[in-house]
This record gives sequence, structure tokens and C-alpha cells, in this order.
Amino acid sequence: MSAYTEFIQTTEDIYRLSAIAGHLGWDQEVLMPQKGGEARGEMMSWLAKEKHQKLTSETYGHLISILEHDSALSEDEKSNVREMKIAYDKAKALPVEFVAKYAQRRSNALRAWQEARAKSDFSLFLPHLKELVQMTKEKIAFYPPTETPYDALLDEYEFGMKVSDYDPLFSGLKGRIVPLLQSIIEAKKHRDTIQLPSGMVFSIESQTRFCTEVSKRMGFDFDAGRMDQSTHPFSSGLWKGDTRFTTRFDESDPFSCLYAVMHETGHALYEQGLPHEYAFCPRGQAVSLGVHESQSRFWENQIGRTASFWKVVLPLLKKEFPEMPHWDAESLNLLANDVEPGYIRVEADEVTYNLHIMIRYEIEKMIFNENLPLEDIPQVWNSMMKDWFDLDVEDDANGCLQDIHWSMGAFGYFPTYTLGNLYASQLLDAMSKEIGDVTTMIESGNWHPILEWLRDKIHDHGSLYTPAELIEHATGQPPTAKPFIEYLEGKYAALYGLDL
Amino acid sequence: MSAYTEFIQTTEDIYRLSAIAGHLGWDQEVLMPQKGGEARGEMMSWLAKEKHQKLTSETYGHLISILEHDSALSEDEKSNVREMKIAYDKAKALPVEFVAKYAQRRSNALRAWQEARAKSDFSLFLPHLKELVQMTKEKIAFYPPTETPYDALLDEYEFGMKVSDYDPLFSGLKGRIVPLLQSIIEAKKHRDTIQLPSGMVFSIESQTRFCTEVSKRMGFDFDAGRMDQSTHPFSSGLWKGDTRFTTRFDESDPFSCLYAVMHETGHALYEQGLPHEYAFCPRGQAVSLGVHESQSRFWENQIGRTASFWKVVLPLLKKEFPEMPHWDAESLNLLANDVEPGYIRVEADEVTYNLHIMIRYEIEKMIFNENLPLEDIPQVWNSMMKDWFDLDVEDDANGCLQDIHWSMGAFGYFPTYTLGNLYASQLLDAMSKEIGDVTTMIESGNWHPILEWLRDKIHDHGSLYTPAELIEHATGQPPTAKPFIEYLEGKYAALYGLDL
Repeated sequence: MSAYTEFIQTTEDIYRLSAIAGHLGWDQEVLMPQKGGEARGEMMSWLAKEKHQKLTSETYGHLISILEHDSALSEDEKSNVREMKIAYDKAKALPVEFVAKYAQRRSNALRAWQEARAKSDFSLFLPHLKELVQMTKEKIAFYPPTETPYDALLDEYEFGMKVSDYDPLFSGLKGRIVPLLQSIIEAKKHRDTIQLPSGMVFSIESQTRFCTEVSKRMGFDFDAGRMDQSTHPFSSGLWKGDTRFTTRFDESDPFSCLYAVMHETGHALYEQGLPHEYAFCPRGQAVSLGVHESQSRFWENQIGRTASFWKVVLPLLKKEFPEMPHWDAESLNLLANDVEPGYIRVEADEVTYNLHIMIRYEIEKMIFNENLPLEDIPQVWNSMMKDWFDLDVEDDANGCLQDIHWSMGAFGYFPTYTLGNLYASQLLDAMSKEIGDVTTMIESGNWHPILEWLRDKIHDHGSLYTPAELIEHATGQPPTAKPFIEYLEGKYAALYGLDL
Repeated sequence: MSAYTEFIQTTEDIYRLSAIAGHLGWDQEVLMPQKGGEARGEMMSWLAKEKHQKLTSETYGHLISILEHDSALSEDEKSNVREMKIAYDKAKALPVEFVAKYAQRRSNALRAWQEARAKSDFSLFLPHLKELVQMTKEKIAFYPPTETPYDALLDEYEFGMKVSDYDPLFSGLKGRIVPLLQSIIEAKKHRDTIQLPSGMVFSIESQTRFCTEVSKRMGFDFDAGRMDQSTHPFSSGLWKGDTRFTTRFDESDPFSCLYAVMHETGHALYEQGLPHEYAFCPRGQAVSLGVHESQSRFWENQIGRTASFWKVVLPLLKKEFPEMPHWDAESLNLLANDVEPGYIRVEADEVTYNLHIMIRYEIEKMIFNENLPLEDIPQVWNSMMKDWFDLDVEDDANGCLQDIHWSMGAFGYFPTYTLGNLYASQLLDAMSKEIGDVTTMIESGNWHPILEWLRDKIHDHGSLYTPAELIEHATGQPPTAKPFIEYLEGKYAALYGLDL
């Protein structure tokens, strides 16, 4: 057996264990009975341990050390070796008992968070958060030193990114977003806002039908996937022919579900479009969280929050919700793009969204670089919400308990959401240059060319390139915030008649 | 590390892989999107291979060979060694490639069967069945010789049972059942039968509520389990705090769902009652299919098909189905015990049920001991249905395609259903002697003492004893058909006023 064949067999075993953990994670959030949590946690821990053992075996390390200098490998093969070398080095740094314990703690914390959020009681989550942060600090200490401790976490979620990258990026963005937000708030004072009449009930059945139709039109193949319900919407690749995403329902507001579905379908289309001949190795995997998020945000915002989109789905909306006011596409679009500082990140408009991310980024930086006492999180959170949004958080469920990420130990994850927003605008620019005006295309109702372009430029490549290389390959230029700022300013200037 | 500790660690790894396969099997039948089948098959095959490798490793074999002669082990420990020695010997007989291929084929066959059954087209299933039978014959050839080839399969599903045990048992049973059936059919000619009015619709929502209530009353803990829908109802142990069963709905007949739920809840109660401190080793597992079936049949028949049961659930039935005729408990019980030769095993009454099993047993015996050409199965099936039941099968979905078992390669499984019926009556006898008249207890509506007795006599013991030992331990006598025959004749003599 060649070294590469042997390497790829173990690689596939590792990815199979990850895929099983992904499946059990999906089940845990969608279906698992409450008392199943403890045993599920043990099982997740066991899977993590098995995976860690395979990944860190001497034989596997030896194979990688041979293959990383093998110039006869194809580009596809090289990308597998490159990615597994990164994973191997990270895993090798962590003792196996640590990995198992960490997985178990994450699973317990997830259940504690669910309860804490339901009861809006941070104190229920705090002991679990303390354990996770403590273990995450231990994890950082196991890794090679970085400029700041938090950098070690940032790099895990978007290869090569660190505080010295994000700090200027975020301050630059904030410098353009805050004035834009102020202009919009000012403009809104002088015009009537459009609102859903209170007291209306939008049935879950109708919302399900409506959102399923939109997801299908985007190109999601329901014979190769499912849509279910969970507290926090998410998407899960599972494996070939089986991609699942979830949504949530608010019976007083169908837009909440719609944009969750468009967002998660965006993720799920990426998963359905990956090259399945490389199913259980990096070449067939999504390259990064930032790129993943570019796909979800592209469909949610660049497609879904446009008047053209609303022209297409208006008949469907009227059919499912005949009692809704008779708004035209432009009015619906204004409603869908209403800018209003709010408590909840996943329901934020495109202008305030990245400010939500920055709050989380700043708090995580405080936790890992300045040892913020975790008891203080609600207070820090709430005071930033007051400073940035002029909002008083009265309820941790609408504050620092709203996101699932910390309960999963996913510190350093949030900034990738902003990267996704930047990439999405950059992709829209490049797409328009190649396949023509996207607005016209959305309005035609035939969105296949859009999906085809994304398949060709992003999905097909899996992890062949690094994230930055992939974006450059797809758009002709390295990642940049410029298209996003121009997109945002252009869009809201037109919507609110601003003179920026 | 002691030999036993090392042995139990690998044993737990093996059971964890089985538990994952069980979970994925549950998902495959309940939720999996259609196009996910191929990858699911590959995953099942991979799990089977991993499990096989662990089970057949030299180290593990060596540990077993030391431990099977270790008299210092506790009885619990000895039962783990005993059961794993059996599993090891069987697994060692099969090459790893064979095991992986067999799992893959089973997964493909399951999907083919689902389609074939839906279209009632045996030819769609035939090529898959041929592959499975061919591989099963290869499997028999790998095993040590048995009196007849089919014996090797029978032993897999109920330890120690063979054709020379079943042949006299079945002919004895048939000798009593056939005259009983004839007496009943004769008696029915002279009395009005009670029937559900045609055209009534029993909504799935009402059936779900009704059956959930019954399942709860039996003692099923819904915080530690789920009820879902699948083509073929089944129960799956998964793991501690997570036991799942499925049912199916017929909108024209709520009894079909009710008895499926009582049956599957019986299985699920066994799983919920197993000693979870031995979760991933034999001591914490159900001991055999026959004993498992005794639990499901006990609740379905000895409890569920009695007038006492109907007295308890009558108010619930009236609440959910107010449009139903105003029958009393005795009438409902007559309806629930109506004896009528029919096509479908899982809907058969207690008199004809074991004849359905015998048809399958006879056909399997022909396949493996007489090389029956598989093309001939529909014809053989249909001619036996004509001879035994005077029924013309016009539709393979109601004939030889009705059961899932063959599509899972589960040849030799069916006879354990009859064992379950025998054990159930034997348990009822013993229970009555110890906790008093069970009929009175059912009618009281407090069924906890019944469940407690089963927990104490059966569930708690896991695989501590062999199946026959367990039944003897619980009832004071070895397995016997006598209580079942007496139960059946007594019950139907009373229901139909027979003079036997």
C-alpha cells in the first residue's frame, strides 16, 4: 500500500468519526429526549477520544511527515496532506484525556445553556462556562505561543487570522457603520415605518410551506436533506445525500423563520455542492467558517433582502398568509431591511449585525487576553449594549445567553461571521461582472445561474485552497472590506434616501 | 491494568459502535432523506468493520481465553466473558471484508425492500434477496457445522435453539391451534360480529394523544425516550436515558396503532429497565430476542387485549374519538380479539399469529436446508396462505414483502416471536402466583406492580443468565408451551363460548 493510500484510509476514518459526532450533535439539538443528555455527552467524549487517537498515532504522523515533502502528489492530494498536517499538529499538542474531558464538558454545558436560556438565568450556565473557559485556557497553553492568547483560538476558526488582523478591520468597519447607522436612525424619524400588525398569527404549517418553497427555489434538494426545528437554527453537512438544517418559528413574525431558512439553506447548499468523491477528507470539506458564512449571508441578504426577491415570492406569501396587509414588494423589502438596534444578533439588520459580532469579539478578547471574571459578563455585555445601541438588556436570554457558541466551547468563532459578510459582498461584485446583473436575475425567478456560479467558484473547490486563496481565485482579488462597505452604504442610501 | 479491566474497555468500545449503528439504523427508518441511503450504507459497513476488528483482535481473544477460566470473577463479570466469548467465536469465523460487504448489502437491500413493498413488486427486491441469501449461505459455511445449515442461523437469534427443537414445538402448537381456530370460525358463524363503521376517520393527532397516554400508563418515560413514525414499527434501545420506538397510523383503524404502541412500549420498557451501570457490556443488555418479544407480547396481549384494560382506557378513547359507537369494554375487547385469518402478521390475532410465524419458518428452512429457488417464494408463500388460511394473496405487499426482516438479512429471527408468546404466558402465570390476580390489577388502573415484577424478574438481570435460565429463574420452571396453550384455549373459550 502506498504511503498516500494508507494516509487517506486513516484520514477517512477520522472524518467518519467526525461525521458521526456531527450526526449525534444534530440529533441532540433536534430530537434527543432530555434524560439522554448524560449518555450523549459520554458518547461525544468517546468519539472525540477515538478520533484523537487515530489522528495522533505515530504511524499517521510519520505518513504526514513523508507526504508533506512528496512533490509527486496531485494538487488535490497535497491539499489533503496540508490540512491534515495542521489538524495533526493541533491535536498532537493536546493530551487524549484532555480531549475526552473537554468534549464531555461541552456536551454538559450545552444542556445547561439550553436550560439557562429557557429560564433566562445566567447563574445556571456560569459554572459550566467557567469550566469551559478554564479548559480553553489550558488548551491555549498546550499550543505553540501566539502574539496574544486569543489568537490561538481565532486561528482555529479561520486559518491565519489574529487579533492584529481583526482589530484594525473591526475599527475600520465601525468607523463607517456607526455614522451610517446614525444617518438611518435620523432619516427614520422623518418617515412612516412599516410594521406587521400586532396580534396576527402566522401558523407554523403555513410558515413551513412558505419557507420550504423558498428553500427549494434556492436549489436545496429535499430528497437529499431535511429541514427541522431547533432552538438555535443550524446546518449540518452529515454526509453525501444527507444535509440537514433547522429553523425556528415565531408565530407573530414569519420573517424570523424565512431569513433563518434562507441563511441555513445557504450553508446547506454549500454542503450539498461539495465534491462527494472526496467525502471523508479535507478536499471534499468546506474550507472555513468564514467562507461557509459567506454562502449563508449571500442568500439571506444579497438575494433575500432585495425588492427583486420579494417580487418573486409575493404570490407565495399571499397564498400562505392571505390575511397579511396587501403590501407590494418594495414595502416588504423595506420591512425586511428595517434598521433598528435590537437585542438579538440573529435577527439583526445588516447594518447593526457586525456591531453585535464586535461586542462578542471584545468580550472574548477580555476573557482570554485580560482574564475578565466571568461573573462580569452580563454586566459588560449590558453596558456595551447601552453604549453602542442605547438599549437596556433586562433579560440575559436576550443578552449574553442568546448564542449557543460559548456553550460549545466555540470561542473565537464569532468574528468569522463578519468575514462571511465581507466575502459575500465581494462574491456579489465578481458574480455580477461574470454573469450579468444579479438584480435582474433574481427578479426573473430563475436562480440556477447564481447557484451554478457559486458551485463553480466556491463549492467545487472544497479545501483545495486556503480561505484567502479561494476568495482571490473566485473574485480576482484578496479578501477586502471595500465591497461590503460600498454595498451597505449604497443599499441603505437608496432605501432611506440618504445623502452620504 | 487487570485483564478484566482491559477486556471490559474493548467490550465497551464494541458496544459503543453497535449503539451508534443502532442510532443510525433508527434514523434511517424514521428520518433519513432518500438520497442519503448510499452513504448510510457505507457508514453502516464501516461501523461493522471497525467493530469486527476490535472484536477479533488477537489481544481481545487472548484476554477472553484467560478470563474464561478465571474463577475469581463475579457472576456479573462471568456473564460478560461468557457472552463475549460467544460473540468472539462467531466473529472470528467471518473475514472482515465479508462482514463489511454484508453490512453494505443489507443496507442496500433495506432500501430496495422499502421501494418494492411500496410498489408491491417482488422483482425489485429479488436481486437483493438473492445477494443476501447467497452471503448468508457463505456465512453458514464459515461457521462450525450444525445438524442442519439453518440451525446456524436459529442459534444466532436464540442461543441454543435449532430445527430439532422448533419442529416438534411448532407441530405440537399447530396441533392445538388449528382445531381451536376451526372452533372459533364455526362459532363466529352463529353470532353477530362487531366492526368499526366504515368511512370513519381517526385523526393522527388523536391517535397520537391516545397512544401516548396508554404508553405513559404502562410506565414508559417520555423524558427518556421518543415515539415516532415509521413504515414498520420497531423499538431501539440506543442508550441510557434514550429509548425510542416507532408506530404507524391507519386513519381508518386506531387499533392498529394502539397495539403497535403497546407492543413497542413493551420492548422499550425492557430497554429502559436494563441496569444502566452496565450500559455497554452484555450484563446490561437484553438477553435474547425471545425474551424481548415476551415483554412486548405480554403488554400487547396479556394486558392490552383484555376487558379490564378496556375498562381503564374507555374514558380516554371516548375523549379522543367521540364519534365512535358507544361500545362497552366487553364489546371493545371482542373487537380487539376478533379472530380472523388475515394477510398481515403484525395485525394477526393471537390464535393465527403463530401460524404466520410457522409459514416464515418453513420457507426459511426450505431456503437454507433445501435450496428453494428464491423466485418461487411468492408462489410458496401464497400457496401456504391458501392451505392454512384459505386466503388468496393478490398483492406481495400483503404477502411475502410485508416483513422487514429478510431485507435486513435476519433469517432465523421469526421463530423467536413464537418463543416470546410462550414466555409471556409463562410469566403471566408466575406473576399471578406472586402478586395476585392480574386481571384485578389491570382493572385498578395501577399497573406499576406489574412493571415492577417484570423489572425485578427480567429487566434487572440483563444478560446475567442464558434465556432459558432466566425464564426458569423468573417462573420456577424451564420454558414450556403449556401455559400458552392453556391461556389461549381458556381465553377464546370464554370469548366465543366454546366447549373445548
